[in-house]
Amino acid sequence: MARAPIPPLAISLGDPAGIGPEVIAKCWDQRREFGLPPFVAIGDGRSVAAVWDGPIEVVDDPHQADAAFDHALPLIHVSAADADLPGHPSVSGAHASLDALELAVGLARSGSAGAVVTGPVSKEQLYAIGFQHPGQTEFVAERCGVAPGNVVMMLAGATLRTVPVTTHLPLHSVTEFLTSSLIESRGRATLRGLQRNFGIAEPRLAVAALNPHAGEGGALGREEIEIIEPAIAALVAEGWRVTGPLPADTMFHARARASYDAALCMYHDQALIPIKALHFEDAVNVTLGLPIVRTAPDHGTAFDIAGQDKADARPMAAAIRLAGESASLRAEAI
Amino acid sequence: MARAPIPPLAISLGDPAGIGPEVIAKCWDQRREFGLPPFVAIGDGRSVAAVWDGPIEVVDDPHQADAAFDHALPLIHVSAADADLPGHPSVSGAHASLDALELAVGLARSGSAGAVVTGPVSKEQLYAIGFQHPGQTEFVAERCGVAPGNVVMMLAGATLRTVPVTTHLPLHSVTEFLTSSLIESRGRATLRGLQRNFGIAEPRLAVAALNPHAGEGGALGREEIEIIEPAIAALVAEGWRVTGPLPADTMFHARARASYDAALCMYHDQALIPIKALHFEDAVNVTLGLPIVRTAPDHGTAFDIAGQDKADARPMAAAIRLAGESASLRAEAI
Repeated sequence: MARAPIPPLAISLGDPAGIGPEVIAKCWDQRREFGLPPFVAIGDGRSVAAVWDGPIEVVDDPHQADAAFDHALPLIHVSAADADLPGHPSVSGAHASLDALELAVGLARSGSAGAVVTGPVSKEQLYAIGFQHPGQTEFVAERCGVAPGNVVMMLAGATLRTVPVTTHLPLHSVTEFLTSSLIESRGRATLRGLQRNFGIAEPRLAVAALNPHAGEGGALGREEIEIIEPAIAALVAEGWRVTGPLPADTMFHARARASYDAALCMYHDQALIPIKALHFEDAVNVTLGLPIVRTAPDHGTAFDIAGQDKADARPMAAAIRLAGESASLRAEAI
Repeated sequence: MARAPIPPLAISLGDPAGIGPEVIAKCWDQRREFGLPPFVAIGDGRSVAAVWDGPIEVVDDPHQADAAFDHALPLIHVSAADADLPGHPSVSGAHASLDALELAVGLARSGSAGAVVTGPVSKEQLYAIGFQHPGQTEFVAERCGVAPGNVVMMLAGATLRTVPVTTHLPLHSVTEFLTSSLIESRGRATLRGLQRNFGIAEPRLAVAALNPHAGEGGALGREEIEIIEPAIAALVAEGWRVTGPLPADTMFHARARASYDAALCMYHDQALIPIKALHFEDAVNVTLGLPIVRTAPDHGTAFDIAGQDKADARPMAAAIRLAGESASLRAEAI
C-alpha cells in the first residue's frame, strides 16, 4: 500500500552527553538499510560532531531538511551554553535537551514535522534545572493540551505490543491504584491507538490478570472478579474486541501473541518483562492518545558508553520507522 | 563428556484421560530424534493403547525395561478400576494416576529407576479422592522425607532457568510472605541444585527485584533494601556468586541471560512470564532439594485435546532428557 507523504520527522537529540546524538547519526548513515523516512535532528550540533564525522547540514526548518536528507544529516541547531563531553552530563546540556524537545513538539503540532521521536534524556539532570514532569511523555502531553492521565504508554515490538495500566508504583500498591475505570480508559485509548497509529480497523485487546492463574476463581485474589472483569465487560459492550482476564504467564508465547494486537497489563513489570525479553533490540515506546505521533527508543542515555561507538542504533531506527508509518497512516485517515 | 550409566527413568503417565499417555508414547516413538535415555512408563496400559497403536511391552521393573526399550515402549502396568476415555477424567483414573506416581517415586528412591518424570495430573480429580497435597511436587517431597518448604520449583529452558520464591499467592500478598530467610533458603537450594542437577561447579544466581526499577533506592518500594539485599548479602558471605536485586524487566534479554545460570524471582508471574514467553515448547519443571531427580513437562492434562493426536510431545521430551542428564551428573558425583 502506498503511504501518504508526510513532512520530515523531528528527532530531538536528547541529552547531548548521552548516546542520543550517536544513534541518530548512525540512523542517518544507515537510513536505507533501516528503511527510514526523512527526518531532521534537533539539538546542539556540536554533540553530534563530537561523536560522528559524517556530513551535517544545519537547516532552519523541516522543509529544508527534506532537500538535504539525501546527502547530509539535517539538523536544526539548538545552542547549549557549553558543549558537553560525551558521558559527562551538565546543567547546560539538560537545558539543551529540553529546548530541543520543546521545538520538536512544536514543529509536529504545527504540522511542519510529521511526528516526534525523542532521544533519551537524563531525568536527574532535568530535575536539577526545575523540570516538573515525571518524564518526557507528560511534557509532550501538556504541550499538546492533553491531560497526562489520558495518554498511554505502549511498548511495541515486531511480535508483541504491551501497555501497562499502572506504571511506577511499588508492587504492593498496585491493587490500591487499580480501578475498573482506569483499566477501561487505558484499554479504550489502546484500542483507538491501534486504529490510528497502526491502521488496525478492528483491534483485538488481550487483558492480563493481576494474580497467578487469573486468580483461580477468587482463590488467589479477587481483583479479576471485582475490578478487571467489569472493565472488560464495559469495553465489550461498546463493541470492542477484548478478551481476558488471561493468566499472564501463558499470554506471551508465540501462538498466544498471534491472537491479539496488544496486551493490556496491570503493572510495570508485567508489561515490560515480556516485551524486553522478546524485543530488547526493537521495542519502541509509543505515546497513544496525543494529537501528534510520538515515539521513542526504549533505552536511556547510557552515559557509560557514550562517545565510544558502542551504542546500538536499532532501537532508535525502530522508533523512527514506526513514527513514520504511524504518521502516514494518520495522514491517510484524515 | 561420557555420562555415567543410569537405570531407566520412571515416567508416571499422569491422569489416564489426559495427554500424558499420548506424549509419553510419542517420546518413545521419537526417542532417537529427541535423544532420550531408556525409560519405563508407569500407569494403566489401556490408556496408552487407547491413543497409540505402537508396541507396548509390559514389564515388572526398570531392569526389564532396559532390554525392552529398543523395540517397544516398556510399561509397568498399574491397573485402574475402569478404563478412562481420553478427555473424560474419572475418580478411578485419579486413583491410577496417584498409584503410578507413588510407584515411580518408590522406584527412584530405591535406585531401581534413575529418576522420576511425572505426567500431568488433574488436581481437581485428585482432591476429589482425598489427595491432601497442593500438587505432585509436595507429594514427592513427602515420600522422599523432605519438608515441602525445602524443595524448590525451577523452570528450566535452553537459555533461561527461573525459580519463584513465592508461588500461588494473590499479588498483593507477596510482600507479606516475602522474607529474607525465605529468599536465602530458596537461593541456596537453587545454587545447590545448579551444582547437583546441572553440573555447574560455581553457579551464578541473579536475584530479581520486586518493584519496578528495583525500587529506585526506596522511592518505589523498600523491599529491595529491607528484604532482598540482606538475603543476597548472606548468600555472598557464604561464598556464592549472587547478584541483584536487578530490575526485572531488563534481566531476561539474551545478553542479560548469558550472565547468570538461574534467576531467582520474587513471585509466580515474574518467574513464569519470561520462561513461557521464551521457552513455551521446551521449559521443564524441575524439583530441586530432593534426594532423587524429578522433572515434569510444564503443561497440564489438556483434557480438551486428549486422544486427538494434537498434543505436542516436545515438553515431555525435554523433561525426560533433562532428567536423564541430571541423573547421570549425580551418578558421576557420587
